[in-house]
Amino acid sequence: MTQPAAHGELRAVEWAAGRLRLIDQTVLPHRLEHIEIETTEGLRDAIAALVVRGAPAIGAAGAYGVALALIEGEREGWNREQVLAAVHRVREARPTAVNLAVCVDRVLPFVDEGLDAVLAEAAAIQREDVRANRDMGVFGADWLIARTGLDRPLRLLTHCNTGALATAGWGTALGVIRELHSRGLVELVYADETRPLLQGSRLTAWELDYEGIEHYVQADAAAAGTILRGEVDAAVVGADRVAANGDTANKVGTLGVALACADAGIPFLVAAPTTTVDVATGSGDDIHIELRDGAEVVEWGGVRTAPPATRGHNPAFDVTPGRLITALVTERGVLDFTAGELPGTHLR
Amino acid sequence: MTQPAAHGELRAVEWAAGRLRLIDQTVLPHRLEHIEIETTEGLRDAIAALVVRGAPAIGAAGAYGVALALIEGEREGWNREQVLAAVHRVREARPTAVNLAVCVDRVLPFVDEGLDAVLAEAAAIQREDVRANRDMGVFGADWLIARTGLDRPLRLLTHCNTGALATAGWGTALGVIRELHSRGLVELVYADETRPLLQGSRLTAWELDYEGIEHYVQADAAAAGTILRGEVDAAVVGADRVAANGDTANKVGTLGVALACADAGIPFLVAAPTTTVDVATGSGDDIHIELRDGAEVVEWGGVRTAPPATRGHNPAFDVTPGRLITALVTERGVLDFTAGELPGTHLR
Repeated sequence: MTQPAAHGELRAVEWAAGRLRLIDQTVLPHRLEHIEIETTEGLRDAIAALVVRGAPAIGAAGAYGVALALIEGEREGWNREQVLAAVHRVREARPTAVNLAVCVDRVLPFVDEGLDAVLAEAAAIQREDVRANRDMGVFGADWLIARTGLDRPLRLLTHCNTGALATAGWGTALGVIRELHSRGLVELVYADETRPLLQGSRLTAWELDYEGIEHYVQADAAAAGTILRGEVDAAVVGADRVAANGDTANKVGTLGVALACADAGIPFLVAAPTTTVDVATGSGDDIHIELRDGAEVVEWGGVRTAPPATRGHNPAFDVTPGRLITALVTERGVLDFTAGELPGTHLR
Repeated sequence: MTQPAAHGELRAVEWAAGRLRLIDQTVLPHRLEHIEIETTEGLRDAIAALVVRGAPAIGAAGAYGVALALIEGEREGWNREQVLAAVHRVREARPTAVNLAVCVDRVLPFVDEGLDAVLAEAAAIQREDVRANRDMGVFGADWLIARTGLDRPLRLLTHCNTGALATAGWGTALGVIRELHSRGLVELVYADETRPLLQGSRLTAWELDYEGIEHYVQADAAAAGTILRGEVDAAVVGADRVAANGDTANKVGTLGVALACADAGIPFLVAAPTTTVDVATGSGDDIHIELRDGAEVVEWGGVRTAPPATRGHNPAFDVTPGRLITALVTERGVLDFTAGELPGTHLR
């Protein structure tokens, strides 16, 4: 166990001195660099290039994008229609990121009130997301301590990146880990590397290193063995969508962690804001699993790792049945699935 | 489903024209090249460089290494002690590969009878391994057809490489798949990429492509989702060691596949020769899990994928409890673990 680092708090997205300041996630874990964005086209490019990723982080960036459009319009002499067209282009920068459109739409009504009103609403979006993550962290940490019943720092496992880099700040599952760490209650974190895009190695390990949290990166395939050998007290993961019955879609590989935790009898905690809970979705059967380009699996840095004719099978997500999930923590508190507290009945 | 290819049968290890001929597995899947070995030092280098890998393949190569020592000794004018010293150096080329020493020791008594006797015994070792794999393939294929009860070609999942490249020929788990394919009963194979060393992408996919078997490579983390979504009829894997109670050590990631199969209620078949069954080992608790260099996880092609201070956790194997295994197929037949047929009582 190490002590919390003395760094400032990580912000993937920040408004500073009239510009949008993003951590350039494409050069992590090698360098911590920021990109200053002054135009809506610049923001579109940054989103497309994955300089900023993670639904809440993209949403916050998009909200500030409305402010960029106003400033840019002032500078370039745009009329109202031109400003709104620029905003619309930001809104469509990543069509699958529903959160981006939601956040832009929330700021849009303030355009006619001027820049200060727009910035205030964008800042509110970011502040609320960070607040939700902080609350989730406290609820999740309290619950993990109680549920594991262990009188010592915990050994945790997580998958993908759910930290400050993926959100408006602090993080969801990684926010729970940050909270435990702030109490001196993290012994070690196993971060699954998260193939094929290695968000675990590149981003989660970087955040853990930044915070001075003891950690290992392991191949995703190692998670089950690490858990069944008794080297982990609990797993904490994020979510892309939680259905009414508790079935949860998250980064591919999450299901394997849940199966191992269920077999080993250790808690498997999902941390996600209530905006991620979609009670209109009855079960995981109704969740469409996006198939991404197979090349992500059979190539590495442009070099093929499989024969030329081999196809990659690349589902981006998997669905963990609610029956394998111990609990869901949101900013409102913890739903204990094992006690029958399911989103459909408890989060309407 | 595609038809079997018209290629000759793959042999990673072959004695031809007074030399040892190895498939250079370091350049797969990009090129099929052979290396001709004429010296015992050359064989040591080839084993160290992973030109040849997989316990049975290394064992067969080592057996032929005794012949190389005799020929080399004749050419160089070595005395008996020098020949035996060269043999010993081959025997020690990879200390953890018990099979290598076993195979060398089996050929050693024939040194005084001359080259022909040595070559005959080495060829017998290779022939017996291929025969065992062929028999295992037939038993395993018959069992899978009966157990799945499906009247159509099967959709199979495998992990790591257990094919002709890893054995003296044909393969263990991949031998079962080859046998099913020869009967026109393979629709599709999901090959887990098998991080960190990608034996699945590099070698298994290459063998499947060579045979003209329809296949996908997927991230190891995708296996559980593929299985729970009902896209797989059965999984077949190899083994490094099987304990008396059926607990099975195999390449890391095997356990995750077994957990998913158990949850989905589909067969999880282990294919391994009886030489892999160690009834002196009571259970998986007695199997030491080798930790390999963490750099294999946090580096790729010499470039780090995690922060400089991040350590990789790199267990080479995991242990699948016998309770998660449906059956074990050896060259003697099938043990149905679910019917209580365990190695300790049925393979003594």
